[in-house]
Amino acid sequence: MLKYAPPLQKLIGELERLPGIGPKSAQRLAFFLLSCPDEQVEELGQAVLALKAEIRLCSRCHNYTTGDLCPICEDPSRDTSVICVVEQASDLMALERSGEYQGAYHVLGGALSPIADIKPSDLYITDLLERIREVQPREVILATSPTVEGDVTAEYLRQLIAPFPQPPQVTRIALGLPVGGDLDYADQVTLARSLRGRTKMEG
Amino acid sequence: MLKYAPPLQKLIGELERLPGIGPKSAQRLAFFLLSCPDEQVEELGQAVLALKAEIRLCSRCHNYTTGDLCPICEDPSRDTSVICVVEQASDLMALERSGEYQGAYHVLGGALSPIADIKPSDLYITDLLERIREVQPREVILATSPTVEGDVTAEYLRQLIAPFPQPPQVTRIALGLPVGGDLDYADQVTLARSLRGRTKMEG
Repeated sequence: MLKYAPPLQKLIGELERLPGIGPKSAQRLAFFLLSCPDEQVEELGQAVLALKAEIRLCSRCHNYTTGDLCPICEDPSRDTSVICVVEQASDLMALERSGEYQGAYHVLGGALSPIADIKPSDLYITDLLERIREVQPREVILATSPTVEGDVTAEYLRQLIAPFPQPPQVTRIALGLPVGGDLDYADQVTLARSLRGRTKMEG
Repeated sequence: MLKYAPPLQKLIGELERLPGIGPKSAQRLAFFLLSCPDEQVEELGQAVLALKAEIRLCSRCHNYTTGDLCPICEDPSRDTSVICVVEQASDLMALERSGEYQGAYHVLGGALSPIADIKPSDLYITDLLERIREVQPREVILATSPTVEGDVTAEYLRQLIAPFPQPPQVTRIALGLPVGGDLDYADQVTLARSLRGRTKMEG
């Protein structure tokens, strides 16, 4: 039986709960932290604690932010006549990294999934529709992931937007992405090409 | 340019400083934590902060501990007539995982290295010698890593222990370990075999 000091055992246990970190990595990280200067460990601990305390969702697009609006919504240079709809804030960041897009975003908070029991009411769909009604963008880009759930969500949104009096053009991010892949893991060039090749959605 | 909320950017920056965690993994972990329940993130943050605040070195063997002595030194079932000398506390833990060893340990805090400018006075060598003089163990196992530095350190210790009035048997952990490898990454079977096959050191 291993005999770690309790605070060390506790930290290893917490680190093991993170994705991609197994028991061995967790132990390595914990011992690494023990060998670090106190300040660095303190900063990491405080940064972890500050995360949940200080971060909230942008009241407009549901990206992560510290204020009422996120840095992108507050940026006057962004083209608000285009709204790019993504599943997660991490997808938004992946698109930002591609440097291809200068419009606004809307984070749904997930994708429709009967298996995971995610219904339209679990996503930020109602206020996306309100936002479209209000802002009257010329285009809505559906950049949900190219998975079954993402495709279903995109099609569901298209059907909701189509009957609008003056509907925006609804486009789907191009399948330059490997089908079944995870948007957040795509490389920047693929993402940029995928944005450029977006196609109009037809009923 | 990316526009993360500052606390998120800060955490990503701190995570990137950890070994084996690149920019992409750091971002993934940060977003994962954002999606976790508050309690879990709080627990991780507190565990990181508690690490340096609560953990100190065992006054006898320099393993990590919360009290004066480490759990291994405090365990009356351990055979204190054998002292296994390792470079780091993480090496001690790796040996413990092998389940092969029931004796005591001594953590040096590193290995001699002219390149990294680590001299005998930088390691816990003086009190290892004192401990040997006092406890008069029947055997001292030199389990420094099978690297140039580890071998030099082992030979250095052997030469210091040899002239003792009633010297303990000095053994070196067997080279079942791949030479140049890192003790902490070895598998348990290799470590167990390596302990069993330890050989007597001759001048």
